[in-house]
Amino acid sequence: MSRPYPPVDYTGYLKVDQLTQLQKPKGEEYGTPVHDEMLFIVIHQVYELWFKQILFELDSVLEIFSRDRIAEQDMLHCSSRLERIIEIQKILVDQVKVLETMTPMDFLEFRDFLVPASGFQSAQFRQIENKLGLINRLTYNNKDYIESLCPMQQPTVRATESEPSLFTLLEKWLERTPLISDGSFDFWKSYKEAVEARQKDSREAIKTAGLDKATESSHLKNLEHMERSFESIFDKNEYEKLQKEGHWRLSRKALSAALIIHLYREEPLLQAPFRLLTQLQNVDENFTQWRHRHAQMAHRMLGAKMGTGGSSGHKYLRAAGERHKVFSDFFNLATFFIPKSHLPEIPQSLKAKIQFRY
Amino acid sequence: MSRPYPPVDYTGYLKVDQLTQLQKPKGEEYGTPVHDEMLFIVIHQVYELWFKQILFELDSVLEIFSRDRIAEQDMLHCSSRLERIIEIQKILVDQVKVLETMTPMDFLEFRDFLVPASGFQSAQFRQIENKLGLINRLTYNNKDYIESLCPMQQPTVRATESEPSLFTLLEKWLERTPLISDGSFDFWKSYKEAVEARQKDSREAIKTAGLDKATESSHLKNLEHMERSFESIFDKNEYEKLQKEGHWRLSRKALSAALIIHLYREEPLLQAPFRLLTQLQNVDENFTQWRHRHAQMAHRMLGAKMGTGGSSGHKYLRAAGERHKVFSDFFNLATFFIPKSHLPEIPQSLKAKIQFRY
Amino acid sequence: MSRPYPPVDYTGYLKVDQLTQLQKPKGEEYGTPVHDEMLFIVIHQVYELWFKQILFELDSVLEIFSRDRIAEQDMLHCSSRLERIIEIQKILVDQVKVLETMTPMDFLEFRDFLVPASGFQSAQFRQIENKLGLINRLTYNNKDYIESLCPMQQPTVRATESEPSLFTLLEKWLERTPLISDGSFDFWKSYKEAVEARQKDSREAIKTAGLDKATESSHLKNLEHMERSFESIFDKNEYEKLQKEGHWRLSRKALSAALIIHLYREEPLLQAPFRLLTQLQNVDENFTQWRHRHAQMAHRMLGAKMGTGGSSGHKYLRAAGERHKVFSDFFNLATFFIPKSHLPEIPQSLKAKIQFRY
Amino acid sequence: MSRPYPPVDYTGYLKVDQLTQLQKPKGEEYGTPVHDEMLFIVIHQVYELWFKQILFELDSVLEIFSRDRIAEQDMLHCSSRLERIIEIQKILVDQVKVLETMTPMDFLEFRDFLVPASGFQSAQFRQIENKLGLINRLTYNNKDYIESLCPMQQPTVRATESEPSLFTLLEKWLERTPLISDGSFDFWKSYKEAVEARQKDSREAIKTAGLDKATESSHLKNLEHMERSFESIFDKNEYEKLQKEGHWRLSRKALSAALIIHLYREEPLLQAPFRLLTQLQNVDENFTQWRHRHAQMAHRMLGAKMGTGGSSGHKYLRAAGERHKVFSDFFNLATFFIPKSHLPEIPQSLKAKIQFRY
Repeated sequence: MSRPYPPVDYTGYLKVDQLTQLQKPKGEEYGTPVHDEMLFIVIHQVYELWFKQILFELDSVLEIFSRDRIAEQDMLHCSSRLERIIEIQKILVDQVKVLETMTPMDFLEFRDFLVPASGFQSAQFRQIENKLGLINRLTYNNKDYIESLCPMQQPTVRATESEPSLFTLLEKWLERTPLISDGSFDFWKSYKEAVEARQKDSREAIKTAGLDKATESSHLKNLEHMERSFESIFDKNEYEKLQKEGHWRLSRKALSAALIIHLYREEPLLQAPFRLLTQLQNVDENFTQWRHRHAQMAHRMLGAKMGTGGSSGHKYLRAAGERHKVFSDFFNLATFFIPKSHLPEIPQSLKAKIQFRY
Repeated sequence: MSRPYPPVDYTGYLKVDQLTQLQKPKGEEYGTPVHDEMLFIVIHQVYELWFKQILFELDSVLEIFSRDRIAEQDMLHCSSRLERIIEIQKILVDQVKVLETMTPMDFLEFRDFLVPASGFQSAQFRQIENKLGLINRLTYNNKDYIESLCPMQQPTVRATESEPSLFTLLEKWLERTPLISDGSFDFWKSYKEAVEARQKDSREAIKTAGLDKATESSHLKNLEHMERSFESIFDKNEYEKLQKEGHWRLSRKALSAALIIHLYREEPLLQAPFRLLTQLQNVDENFTQWRHRHAQMAHRMLGAKMGTGGSSGHKYLRAAGERHKVFSDFFNLATFFIPKSHLPEIPQSLKAKIQFRY
Repeated sequence: MSRPYPPVDYTGYLKVDQLTQLQKPKGEEYGTPVHDEMLFIVIHQVYELWFKQILFELDSVLEIFSRDRIAEQDMLHCSSRLERIIEIQKILVDQVKVLETMTPMDFLEFRDFLVPASGFQSAQFRQIENKLGLINRLTYNNKDYIESLCPMQQPTVRATESEPSLFTLLEKWLERTPLISDGSFDFWKSYKEAVEARQKDSREAIKTAGLDKATESSHLKNLEHMERSFESIFDKNEYEKLQKEGHWRLSRKALSAALIIHLYREEPLLQAPFRLLTQLQNVDENFTQWRHRHAQMAHRMLGAKMGTGGSSGHKYLRAAGERHKVFSDFFNLATFFIPKSHLPEIPQSLKAKIQFRY
Repeated sequence: MSRPYPPVDYTGYLKVDQLTQLQKPKGEEYGTPVHDEMLFIVIHQVYELWFKQILFELDSVLEIFSRDRIAEQDMLHCSSRLERIIEIQKILVDQVKVLETMTPMDFLEFRDFLVPASGFQSAQFRQIENKLGLINRLTYNNKDYIESLCPMQQPTVRATESEPSLFTLLEKWLERTPLISDGSFDFWKSYKEAVEARQKDSREAIKTAGLDKATESSHLKNLEHMERSFESIFDKNEYEKLQKEGHWRLSRKALSAALIIHLYREEPLLQAPFRLLTQLQNVDENFTQWRHRHAQMAHRMLGAKMGTGGSSGHKYLRAAGERHKVFSDFFNLATFFIPKSHLPEIPQSLKAKIQFRY
């Protein structure tokens, strides 16, 4: 200890007294206490505490990425913040099991008390989604998500829609990556050649392998598929067309940087960026899992509407799970990797700058 | 120890020597070893070992359920077997993370060696699905799943299609439940009255609550929806129509038994059956999660086909996740629960038979 | 919905606004904000919320067990409450990983602000321990644990020491188990005969197995050990001696009931009690794991005192892990099981009362 | 695909047929099949498969660390291999729960068949321990662990005792760290000054804080403790004395490198080494957890020997948990960190070499 701060006690520091008085079951208010309502309140409060923490870490990452240049030390900080978010997300997913110790019949005892409250009203979660960069949110019952929020929180959440999101800041950072713009190396040209060389090798190997006609033709067809697939990133116009149709979201420049980071991830300078992209995929995957678990639980608790027109919450959640991925471009990118042995070499001049030895 | 069995040693008993020699990476065969192929082999072998164990437990449950009468002791056994399957499934889901320590670029180094092998060829997993009662399996690339299996295993797997599945045996067992057929209690009649009484109460409460027009009308509309929804199980014809359309799979008789088990789950005689139904939901949920995690991983490893016609494995897996649920009737059932306070009482004569005290 | 309750919104119901304002980092108060302090506060608040929930469930179980007779329905409730506690405990253990995303150097930045606050001051956790039935708590630095609590909470916690704990209530309930006191069946007598018969069989089998002298003698020695071990429960005086020395805590009568429940766990009447005893072992195991994980984390964060006299928190936690088990009698009991094939049969008259069929 | 490899099928590639025929329950051999023996075999085979994978990754890490210089690319490989080991370990711990679905009474049905086989006979696990660098293994029943192994495996395991372990190679690598030996920076001198400055500040702050006598004296006493503690690393002789007594295992030179890596972990050059040290702590922690969970399970399955002399397996496992940590020096090191604000600055000349910007 460097200096004697005023003594602190656990209970006061953590506001345990206030904290444990924030559970106000409606059942008690209405004179018909229901045992399981307490769990319902506590677990949702735990979710909101974790959301607060995720927002806190996310804001720190956003602040770093909003700078013009990011020092290597700060890459470590970003990586630590994201790691923490990822570990918290695992808990968010796992603790659905705690809620599932409540059976649908138990829930029914107090469900009516809560109408029309719903998890869709979590302003903090909506902020997380916006700050990550979610756009084109699936609407539920044709209503703007903002309207379902409590009026006081609508402006705060609305504001996060127009702030630069992690997606946007990351895109800009990728576009700045030195490797693409370095004079000595035209990535797209080299990569196209490498891919074509590989395709050519494959074609010849197939033809001289003595395969029966059907197998040969199937192999060749696959090859053509792959060629056309590659066209979609090699051809700027084709890319932009697919981008307009919603198949890609990142600018082609940013996408090429992401591709380079994956292909040359072992280069010292690229290890931290590679780690970062991987973490963002994890964050995406974890929220997808969370929505999926949530959907399962909603199905279990509420069943499905039979013979009526209404749509079910669990179907919405399941659809949103995939649709609300922010970084799916990074997942789709894997189609365009080629093995290390076929990669174009980085010119020595460039390589020298990005290596060191322990 | 009651008698001295011949001494056993760990290594011989577990066949560790043979076991650890079954990993034959193609990379080594082709003279180009790839570090990550070992993990790929080992983790899939672990999956197959667990599948063997799940089949073993499942067969035991099927054997018990194929009897005309099930002793209470055997309900304990079924429940223990299912609990074990559930714990194994959690491991199946969690260990996807181990496979994700392999990056797409690592996978690319040996992916070509394995063509056209695929997880769809796991004969054990197909047997598990069939034994649980999966029907109408989603086809992948318009091909019967059996054809993708290795020819030697096709008859074994095909056979499990026509054996009585857990779904079928469970349906029969539910149909035999004494409570529905007891002379003193007509469940459907009593339940319909209870539901109608509840609806009537609600209608009056809404009308006398002094609500504004819009809110009142919205409440009343919900009520009507619910009424129509209930018709789908109260009306035998309506139920059978929905059943034909694939909304329900269980016979109405079996479904009513499942409903009774949920509604009166606290009755001593019904606690074990309730536990069983809950476990079957867990088994279903866990395989759904597993397929979902698998889909995520496939997306990450293989990307998505862009600008070509082919369908992606990860999309198939994701769709199958929900579609391949076997016991979704039990999930949908929750819509038709009413709170304990409104439940029709079980006649005293019946109740007496099914209670004891500690 | 049966009647229109006043509309509820998510934020108001869960007190999200108040909840997310209870985080008051000392770093900000002192004008030197430290990023990681927020996590430290939030995770401990999450722990306290879960402790509140555990207390809530535990109180419900205690209330049921304080009754003279426990209806079968209530056994289901106890079992559900305990299951919930167990699922919460898993989260308590797993979320230590979230805290471990903070490195010791990060912690050092605000550690001094918090002196002398410590997790030992969690009044809720001490109540949980007392209500479970912890006695002879390991002292930390020779101080009564009550003194470390904040003065306002000391009376509440002290009170839980003298209330009937789950251990005490369970012991009484076990002593009431009908099976032991039933006239037609003297459990101890029958069990002693069964054990002796088994020992005799073993002795003969060993002697006629044609073993070499050394192996035979080793087998016989084991047999004698086991015989002496059994004496410790067959002989009332021996048992009470061991009880005084702290090897057993349960009364011999309660212990014999627990033994019967394990041996005949398949009997319909005993399935629920068996489940209960197993759950109590799980609760114990989970808190032991939690203390152990906590000890690991403390070691990692704070290191160890080198070359000085002080004792380290992590060593205390590790020792407490085992010592603070409440139901270790149930673990130790396994030594005294014999295989099903050797069990004395329950007389038919008794058996008839405790069976039913589905 | 670059060339058409011979087609591969899932079953053949993974040797599924052979794999699923390696389960040979003794119960069947003896004509008395026991349901739970299959799980016992399968789960242990899964453990051995994972051990094989851990050995495979560990060997790769050892190979890299046995080089004179480690390229940055290879630090990424080490880190990936260790991450994989860590993820596998989590599964090893979690799957104990699967084994716990077997009750002690179930185990008793086939326990006698297996005498004297025991998990202590896993040759692969002993190799992992030796390769990590375990020395002074706790003996069980006063027997060298090698003797308990099956004779054919003893030489393989014995050999791993004398090969350079990860501990040894890491120690050498730490000793080579450039930062300690750089001419412009005498780490120990600077650090000692920084610590002393901090202590002096603290002393003054305490004296001028207007504390009551008792509190002041307690604060000062803590300060002295800390001073003496620091002596144990500042003073070479004191360190070596403690090292001989077993309090430290690393050479003081290696320890100082580890200390530097922790203190300046944000420097670009030190981020990867910091990650590595953290991962080694995780590996250690996870095996400790695994032994601890194992101990709990053994206690549950086998109980405790009462009133006899024998020692219990679960007590051995629990003691080994802590004792068999290989990298506990890294845990203990945390005592000697000081906050960032008090750290001696790295000279600019040195700093320039180890930074780059994104």
